[in-house]
Amino acid sequence: MPDCIFCQIIEGKLPCAKVYEDDLVISFLDINPVNTGHTLVVPKSHYVSLFDTPPDLLQACIEVSQKVARAVFKGTGASGLNIIQNNFRSAGQLIDHIHFHLVPRNMHDGFFTSWPGKPYPSGELEKTLKKIKAEL
Amino acid sequence: MPDCIFCQIIEGKLPCAKVYEDDLVISFLDINPVNTGHTLVVPKSHYVSLFDTPPDLLQACIEVSQKVARAVFKGTGASGLNIIQNNFRSAGQLIDHIHFHLVPRNMHDGFFTSWPGKPYPSGELEKTLKKIKAEL
Repeated sequence: MPDCIFCQIIEGKLPCAKVYEDDLVISFLDINPVNTGHTLVVPKSHYVSLFDTPPDLLQACIEVSQKVARAVFKGTGASGLNIIQNNFRSAGQLIDHIHFHLVPRNMHDGFFTSWPGKPYPSGELEKTLKKIKAEL
Repeated sequence: MPDCIFCQIIEGKLPCAKVYEDDLVISFLDINPVNTGHTLVVPKSHYVSLFDTPPDLLQACIEVSQKVARAVFKGTGASGLNIIQNNFRSAGQLIDHIHFHLVPRNMHDGFFTSWPGKPYPSGELEKTLKKIKAEL
């Protein structure tokens, strides 16, 4: 995809701090890291999101994510790590080529630790479950 | 694992709002959702984190996550969705049984959209890359 910055990195037209590469997947440092060592895992074929990516390519991505996450975790001396995969603008996706963020974490590093979750109002959980199951 | 709340759900000793189940993986609504329809995808075997889970089980989880995420996205009418997988306390993991959060998103819903990222100071990117690659 000519206008895609990740495709340009994959084709070698733009530089990156490459951590790992195989036939299907590439991994490189995020240049605007949440924390030092924040790394991206990106399939080499252009797909926009979780929804249009073939399942076998997602499987390749999660396998590489595990391998690279181990190295990120050890290499940075972190005490935790998030995998975060954002789909579409409202979820924080900025580059329209699917990617997995590996974010090494330490206590009180300023990124999230607790969730802003709250219980369902009475009856809403059952309604929500029904709507989701109807789409499966 | 007797003390694990997710193992108790998987064994049917605790109730859940089940979205999906197969031989390897179960998916159910988070009872303290970030947004309505926030769903968990959990392998049925007890592993703590990304680091001790067998790769083929991670692959089963990502395949189910894609399938269930489509249903969550459509069923809730969301405009975005995050997959978030937290490892250890500093990364926000509260239950010590690996799980993937599927969080449906809408613009201005109060959860994150932009990252608190910042560029590396001069020379730090290269040093970080070297440390990570040494662990691969």
